[in-house]
Formats: sequence, C-alpha cells, structure tokens
Amino acid sequence: MRALVDFLLRDWLHADTLTERPRFADHSLETFAQVLDTCERIAREKYAPFNRLVDTEEPRFDGEKVILPQATHDAVKAYAASGMLSAAQDYEHGGMQLPYTVEAAANAFFAKASVSIGTGMLTTGNANLLMKHGTELQKTVFALNEFSGRWSGTMCLSEPQAGSSLSDVATKAVPDGDDFEAEPFGARYRLTGNKMWISAGEHELNENIIHLVLAKIPGPDGKLVPGTRGISLFIVPKKLVDAQGRLTGERNDVALAGLNHKCGWRGTTNTLLNFGEGRFPVRGGPGAIGYLVGRAGEGLRCMFHMMNEARIGVGMAATMLGMAGYEASLAYARQRPQGRPITEGGKDAAEPQVPIIEHADVKRMLLAQKAYCEGALALELYCARLVDESHTGTPEAAAEASLLLEVLTPIAKSWPSEWCLEANSLAIQVHGGYGYTRDFPVEQYWRDNRLNMIHEGTHGIQALDLLGRKVVMQGGAGLKLLATRVGETIQRAGQVQGLAEPANGLAAALQQLGAATKSAWATGVPEEALANATPYLQAFGHVVLAWIWLELGLAAKQAAPATDEQAARNAGLLAAMRYFHVYELPKIGAWLAVVSQREAVCREMQDSWF
Amino acid sequence: MRALVDFLLRDWLHADTLTERPRFADHSLETFAQVLDTCERIAREKYAPFNRLVDTEEPRFDGEKVILPQATHDAVKAYAASGMLSAAQDYEHGGMQLPYTVEAAANAFFAKASVSIGTGMLTTGNANLLMKHGTELQKTVFALNEFSGRWSGTMCLSEPQAGSSLSDVATKAVPDGDDFEAEPFGARYRLTGNKMWISAGEHELNENIIHLVLAKIPGPDGKLVPGTRGISLFIVPKKLVDAQGRLTGERNDVALAGLNHKCGWRGTTNTLLNFGEGRFPVRGGPGAIGYLVGRAGEGLRCMFHMMNEARIGVGMAATMLGMAGYEASLAYARQRPQGRPITEGGKDAAEPQVPIIEHADVKRMLLAQKAYCEGALALELYCARLVDESHTGTPEAAAEASLLLEVLTPIAKSWPSEWCLEANSLAIQVHGGYGYTRDFPVEQYWRDNRLNMIHEGTHGIQALDLLGRKVVMQGGAGLKLLATRVGETIQRAGQVQGLAEPANGLAAALQQLGAATKSAWATGVPEEALANATPYLQAFGHVVLAWIWLELGLAAKQAAPATDEQAARNAGLLAAMRYFHVYELPKIGAWLAVVSQREAVCREMQDSWF
Repeated sequence: MRALVDFLLRDWLHADTLTERPRFADHSLETFAQVLDTCERIAREKYAPFNRLVDTEEPRFDGEKVILPQATHDAVKAYAASGMLSAAQDYEHGGMQLPYTVEAAANAFFAKASVSIGTGMLTTGNANLLMKHGTELQKTVFALNEFSGRWSGTMCLSEPQAGSSLSDVATKAVPDGDDFEAEPFGARYRLTGNKMWISAGEHELNENIIHLVLAKIPGPDGKLVPGTRGISLFIVPKKLVDAQGRLTGERNDVALAGLNHKCGWRGTTNTLLNFGEGRFPVRGGPGAIGYLVGRAGEGLRCMFHMMNEARIGVGMAATMLGMAGYEASLAYARQRPQGRPITEGGKDAAEPQVPIIEHADVKRMLLAQKAYCEGALALELYCARLVDESHTGTPEAAAEASLLLEVLTPIAKSWPSEWCLEANSLAIQVHGGYGYTRDFPVEQYWRDNRLNMIHEGTHGIQALDLLGRKVVMQGGAGLKLLATRVGETIQRAGQVQGLAEPANGLAAALQQLGAATKSAWATGVPEEALANATPYLQAFGHVVLAWIWLELGLAAKQAAPATDEQAARNAGLLAAMRYFHVYELPKIGAWLAVVSQREAVCREMQDSWF
Repeated sequence: MRALVDFLLRDWLHADTLTERPRFADHSLETFAQVLDTCERIAREKYAPFNRLVDTEEPRFDGEKVILPQATHDAVKAYAASGMLSAAQDYEHGGMQLPYTVEAAANAFFAKASVSIGTGMLTTGNANLLMKHGTELQKTVFALNEFSGRWSGTMCLSEPQAGSSLSDVATKAVPDGDDFEAEPFGARYRLTGNKMWISAGEHELNENIIHLVLAKIPGPDGKLVPGTRGISLFIVPKKLVDAQGRLTGERNDVALAGLNHKCGWRGTTNTLLNFGEGRFPVRGGPGAIGYLVGRAGEGLRCMFHMMNEARIGVGMAATMLGMAGYEASLAYARQRPQGRPITEGGKDAAEPQVPIIEHADVKRMLLAQKAYCEGALALELYCARLVDESHTGTPEAAAEASLLLEVLTPIAKSWPSEWCLEANSLAIQVHGGYGYTRDFPVEQYWRDNRLNMIHEGTHGIQALDLLGRKVVMQGGAGLKLLATRVGETIQRAGQVQGLAEPANGLAAALQQLGAATKSAWATGVPEEALANATPYLQAFGHVVLAWIWLELGLAAKQAAPATDEQAARNAGLLAAMRYFHVYELPKIGAWLAVVSQREAVCREMQDSWF
C-alpha cells in the first residue's frame, strides 16, 4: 500500500505544492515520507501483531478498573511518542504543522494494522476542538495535555434514547453555585445524565480522561429546550485538575455504567457512562462538574466543526479494513493451489493444481477489492487535501474547497463503510472455508468493518444529509461545483487514448445523477424526495468513485513508468478503473430509477402489512 | 412466519393435491399442520432459547471428548424424538412418508430458532443416501440406526488440499485383506487420509458416528486415479458394529485432528479428521475400516444424488437466518422511539419521538428484508415441491420437475446465501448501535449466515454449475423450461389488475437474460463465457426471484381475505413484490452487461498488476 500512498500524494495530489505555503514551508516530500515511514513502522511493530489479541481479550471491568491488554498500553504509548496526536498543530503548541493530507495518510497505517487498538483519533479531535473553541486556559490545560498523550479525550454525544436524534439529548447542566461564571476553566456547571457508545470512556491507559459532553442548560422555566438549539458543550474531566494541569486528587462524578460488547472492533473500550449519578460525589455534589466550552446553546455547532474530519477518519478506517483484507486475500490467492484452468477440452485432472489467483472469478473478487479499497483511499486523501485547501488556500480556493468538502463528506464516510465491507466479504470468499475461521484475519476485518455504517452518523443519516441538505444548499452550488470538477476530469480524459470510453460513461452518469436530483425534488415535498435518500446516496457515491477512478486512470497514463513495478502499478490502476466503470458504475441505473420516480412503496408501507 | 408458510403451502403450492398421490394418501392438510405445529414448538422450546449460548460456549476438546452444551444434547434428543430424522421415509422403515415440501417447511423452524445447534440434516442426508445406494444390510444397520437417532452421520468430502476441487481428493482406500469382498457390510477397505470441514465429526451426542467418506482406490499401478472418476464412497463408523447393529467395542481409526473455530455457526462441531493415522489401530491396522457403498468409482455420483436436497437445505438455512433477523428488527423498529416525521415545515422537536418503523428509510430496510427472505422461503418451498414432483409425479411431470430443479438448484443455494445475508446486515442497521452489540441477536445471525456462501459449493462453484452446465445441458432444455414456466406466470399476471406492470418488467428481464446467455456463449469459448459466471448467477437469481414474487403477487390477488390479518398479509405481499420489482430487478442491467460483452478485464488481469 505504501507505494500507492506515495503515488497518490506525489503524482496525483501533488503534495509538494503544499510546501509552498507558509504554514508548511519547513516541510518537503522527504519530511512527509519520514512521517509515513515512522507510522508504518510503529503500526507494523506495535499494532499489527496484536490485532487478533485485542479481539479475543476484550476490555473487562474488574469492579474498579477497566483492564486492557498490555499490547494496547504499549501501542497507545508508542503512538503518543510519535507526536502524531498533535501532528497538525502549530509548532508553538508542540505540533508539526503537518498537512492534514499527510496526517490522514500516516494514520491510515494504524487503521490497517489494528483499527480497534485506536490511534487517539478521539483525543486529537477533542483537543483540536478545544484549540478552536476553547479559552486560553482550556487550551493550555486540557488540549495540550491531550496532545502530549498525558491525558486522553472522548466525545460524549449519544444517549440511550438519543442516537441519530441528537436533539433529544437529555443530559442536564445547571449552574454550579452563584459563582459559576467566575470559574477560571469556563462557566462551571453540574451535569446529570447518561451517555451511550462512548469510546475510550473508561480505561487506565493514561492519567486522566477529558470528556467533551453535550448537555442542555434548562431555560428560565426550568425545562430543557427542545431541539438542537438547546445543546451546549462541556469539558468534564474524569479527575479534577488545577490551573497548572495537576490532578487535585478529586474524582469527578463520572461513573462507568457498563461496557458494550460488540460484534467486532473489540480492542476499543466502548461504554455507557453515568454523569452525576452520585457514585463519586464531588465537592458537595450533586452532579458531575463541567466547564462550558464556547457559548451556551452552541454545542452542536462546535462539534460539527470537527465532523468533516471525524467522518473522513471513519471513511479511512473502513477503507483500511478493506485494504487489510485485500492484501490478506491477495497473498492467500497467490499461494493456495486449487483447481485447474478452464480450457476448451475440459480440465486435465492429471495436471497439478494452480494457485487460485489464476482463476477469473478469483481475479474478479480481488479486482473488486482493489477497485473498492484503492478508490476509497484516493477519495479519502482527496477530501483530506480539501481540508488543507480550506485552511491554507486563497480565500476563493478555500471557500470552494469547503463547499466541495461539504458535498463529498457524506460519501467519504458512507461509501467505504459499505463497499470496503463488501471487500472484506470478498476477502473471506477468496479464502473459502479458511476465511470463515478465526485462524485467518479476514473474518475479523469484516466484523470490525460492520461498525462503520453505524457510528458517526448512520448510512441513513448521511443520505438525508446529502440529498436533504448538501445538494440543495445555496441553490445547489455544491452539486454544481462537483459537476464542474467532474466535467474537467472528463474533458482531460477525453483527450487521452484509452480513456474516452470511461470519460463518456462518466459524463452520462453525471447527467443521470443531476436529472435524478431534480426529479427527486420536483414536487418540493421533502417526504417524497427523501424516501429514497439511501439509494441516492449509493448512486452518488458510485458516480464520485467513477470520477476518482477516471482521475487515477489519468494519473496512471501520465506517470511514465521508470521501473517494471511502476509499469505494473499503472496497468493495475487502469484495470481497476475499467473494472469500476464496467462492473460497478452501471449499478446506478437501479438506484436512480427509484429516486427519479419518487417511488413511494416504502414510505406508503403500513406497519400491519409487514 | 407460520401464517406465511401455511399460505405458501396451501394457497400457492396447493400441498393438498399431494395427498391425492398414493404415497401421501394417509396425509391431509391437517396432518401437515400437526407436523409443523410440533416442529414449531420444539424449535421454540429447545432451540431458540439457546441460540446465543451455543455461540458463546463453543465445542471444545478436553483431550478425550468433544464437549457440547447440555442444551445441544437436549435439542438433538428432542429432534430425534419428533421423528423428523426419517420423516420422508417409508412407513415400513419407521418413516412418516411426509412430502419433502412439508419436511423442508418443518425444518425451517429449527433453522430459524438456532441454525447451528443443527437438526440432523447431515444424519438424514447420510441415511437417505444409504437407503438409495446401500445394500440391505447397510440400510438396516446403518441407515435405520441413524433415522432412530441412535447414531448420527457425517459427509466427508473436503480435504485440506481439496475443497472446491474434489477431483483432488487424496484419501486412499485399499482392499482389506484377501477376503475384503466377503465382508457382509460391503467390500471392506482400509482408508488413510485427512478430511476437512467435517460437521459433527466428533461429539458425544449419541452412541456412534457413521462417516460417509469419499476416497480413491488405487489403480493397478498403485497410483490414485486423477479426477472425479476415481472417487468411491465408503461407510466408516467411528465405532465398529456387528450385523445386529451392536457395538463390538472396537474403536475405528478415525481421530480428531482439530476443531475449526469459526466466525459464526459455532454451535456445530466442525472438525479436521484423520483416517487411519494409527491413533486407534483397529484389527491389526493400518487404516480405518470402511465399507464400499455402491460401485467403485461412483462415489461422487452417489453423493450428487443428495446434492439438490442438501443445497435446498443450505438455501433454507440462509433464508431462515434472514427471517430471524427480519423478525427481530421488525419487533425492534416497532418499539424503538427515535426522531420525528419529515414534514414540509421541518421537524418539531417539542413533539415526542416516533417509533422508527414510521421512517421511510427504516421501512425500506424492513421491506427489503421481507422481499429477500419471504421470496427466498417461497423459492425453497417451490424447489422442495419439485423434489416431490420428481419422486411422485407422472413420468413426464417428474422428468420436467427434475430438469427444472437442476436449473434452479444453484439459485436456491446461492441466492439466499447472498441476499438473506444482506438482510441480516440490514437487520443490524435497523437496530443502530444496539444491533452491533451481542446483547441483540442480529449480529449473530449475520455472522452465522456468512458461512452459507461458502459451504456446499461456493458461490463461484454454483455460478460455474449454472452457466457452465445447467443452462447449456440438453441444448438449453432446462433454461427453456424455466422460461416457459415464467412465461405462463407472466401470461396469467397480465390479465390481473395491477400486475401488468411487473409482468411486463419480468418479461423484459427474461428476454435480457436469454440474450445474455446467448452472448456469453457466442464464441463457444468456455473461458470467455465463464469469466463472468458470478454476475450471471446474480442476475439469474434476481430474475427467478422476480418471477417468484410475481407468483406471490398473483396468489395474494387471488386469495380473497377472510380477515383483516389476511387482507394485511395480501397488501404486504403486493408491496414486497413491488419493492422487489422496482428496487431489485433493475440491478440485472449491470450484471448482464458484463456477461453479454464477455468482459475480459478480470480474466486478463495479471498477478503483478494487483
């Protein structure tokens, strides 16, 4: 995979151009490569060997502490020591000022090696949010101690009764005493409520856990404000600290209510947490002590600021699980003898068996995986590049990048979580019966990957976001911008030998997509348009990936090979492009048909008819 | 599900007409219902409550014995006591002379309750084979003791180096002494070799295990005959018995080499067995003692005789796992409040949340499951009905049924294993994060179901069987027959109000399928045709299911409802039919495109390009 990452960064995304910008001026392709080298090595040494171990030795609670394997402790330490937690931060805060594109690529190696040991994505996201929305003291005390790896971070959004529907958050935050606004850490509140699906919510991996918690401050009538407008964001440390970042010795009232036992992704502790239930009364209680971040009522806005990167992170995790399965099944197919070539005269059973990679159907399953996973990797890195552009580009370029990123984010999150899961299923299939056993790694990749369609906004939520918001916002400006970019690729490809056919195919698909978008909204009735938001999301994703593959085909055509390996790489990219365009892209027909006709059979279905 | 089974048997397949045949003359719809009642009850009481238990308490080997949960012992006993092991057998052999259609329907309840506890399908299959191909003594001693539940049976086909490629079986059988042909149990051989993936290969559930083993008898040159021609079939009991069926006290040389630890389906012991390795030397050894069944060299033919029913069994298991997930997610969706209706004015967060079954996208996921699983159930029962027809119909009808069954079997096996797995994934998705935890049953159904695309002939093998053999055999007679049957349905549906549109859609799809079949073979080069056998299988399956759904739509239109429940059932069937025809059937376009153009990108892919 490394060779592909290098190719994508250098030959396709031209990462070197980033180093012309002041923020990244100290960097070069060499420093980028060093970061990738380091991460690849740590992932190989500290993550990959323990991926099955963290699946079998699930986190367990001994009544007092959550116990994790030593390997997890070691991996988390090594990751923190690498400096990756603050890779994107300013030098003055101990960061590397690394472009997000390179950070995302580097983190991919950990996800491939062992997705559930975790890389501190939550800690980084938590601290990044504080750097953006926190006070100076919140940054210095909380964010910086997270970046150093001394403490870790969580994101506490969901509740047992409020998952997809965040507006139903019921955790309550009330001012803590008359002097609550005088608190140096930010207005001090007392929180009570339950938070569900909290990853890394309880463990002993480091000294403290900094929870970022969504909660509602009651209105003047004492009632919680309905909807998302009422939601605020709070820092709730597991252990209280002073302004110098020293533990005060006081345990905050955050209690583990239970560990969730999952189908996969078992290396990560996933918890139900009770805030302020009285298990650990603190400073006279009741309630867990929390400090307001940003302004009251703007909690979700602060969180959503991190959402694009978090969703790219999930997409990348899904992609890397797919990639891990692809590599495993490719290696297996190369060495497993079974069967003989299909020839006109029938098979000659006296001949020795051939490696299964010689069978067309096995090649099909490998090529599908390649098309799904390498395409998804390119998409994620493209989106990461947009993040960098939105932060460091000219105002005009930054605005464009932001808009395009808004439209692409639901795809970056949903597409790999659906299709790289399918890749994992194919990886099992290539292995035959062996793939279904726990003696081979692929069944775990498949189980691990099933989470990605659920967390960080389900597939259905991504679909509503895309069709209900992203493609209609600003009069459809985002969709138009995407169409323009796709059109430019088609234009360029049309002039390259061998790419006219996929270019034309993509042009037709893009037109179909545009027409379906219009038809979906033709009546202006959201209920009618959005009933088929998921097939729309699927079709949209396939069009985007067909575009990405045409881009990669172009890049392969333009990268004159210096070695046999590079020539083979180019041939492989062109084959995967063709695979995607002939086997996958035509699937949009079925998905868009129901979108276009605003098919009503689902929304008109009655409960009693099931 | 019971109401649907009754509807399918009575109103669609007209199971009562079977009772007009001599073999089933003692039966009636009432006796059929009693069998279903009994099986439904045993499944509910002895299987369903222990489905998670058998997942967590995997079979383990204590060095001497394989230990299974008590629940498995109880379930196996209850199943044997029900008489289902010999349900289809003659009265004179202790059977019920039950039509296979009813047997398959009855067994479905066990598969839904706990697929991996197992129902004795292997034992029944083993004994049925002996009733067909065995000598009188083989029947009396081995088959009858299996039917009674005193002993159990296995099928030993695969070897570590010979899974899909059975012609590479290397287990050797040599005549046991000069008097080997004088053995009353059938010519006596000594077997040496390893058999992989043997379900129920070792356990203490009953007194003895009767292995049916494929092995090769060396030719005059002492070498094994290459290919499948050389394969013979042997009875190899774990413990030797005498002609009265009494254990002689001698252990045969069949040794457990290891248990396979699987992703799911963990209630069933799955083993690697060593035959004749010398661990249990018997009667002076070497080799395990085995008795030839049928003629030498005809082992596979004997096995294939059972294949149609075994494959229907796998398809039904896949279907029932899908159905179990559908029912679980439907129940969950009815009681889980989350979110609010999409309305033109936006959501009113002050309103209470609604059950998620009210959301169009959740209804879509439920309707998809309904369409996949109920359609698959109908297909399996249709195929089971063909089995009965092939056994008890007029010679002409029997021949037709056999031919049609040959063509449909790859679909009956592969389609549910692909799409009811997808149904299980949707069942998880409906549950959100909860579905990904082991506190809910759906993740297990999904894991369990992943096996079905692998065992009893992988997806790829089914595809080669369909496109490489079934649709071309006898000059395409099977495909023509299917087309005729589908055409009759289209004809009938065309005259019914509301069914003209799906009838026309199916007619077009059938034509597309026929054209693609021709194009695939246009050059007559197997390598070119078969490179896209799997997309062909997928398209073929969807056309077959669209036909089944049109049949069910017709049946629903024709069954005048006597109650509100029946009216709701009819409405549900018609909605599922529409769902399948508008969301699913159009997918064939993408699959058949590559078949028709004999797309070569996969088979031309080079190893080094990956």
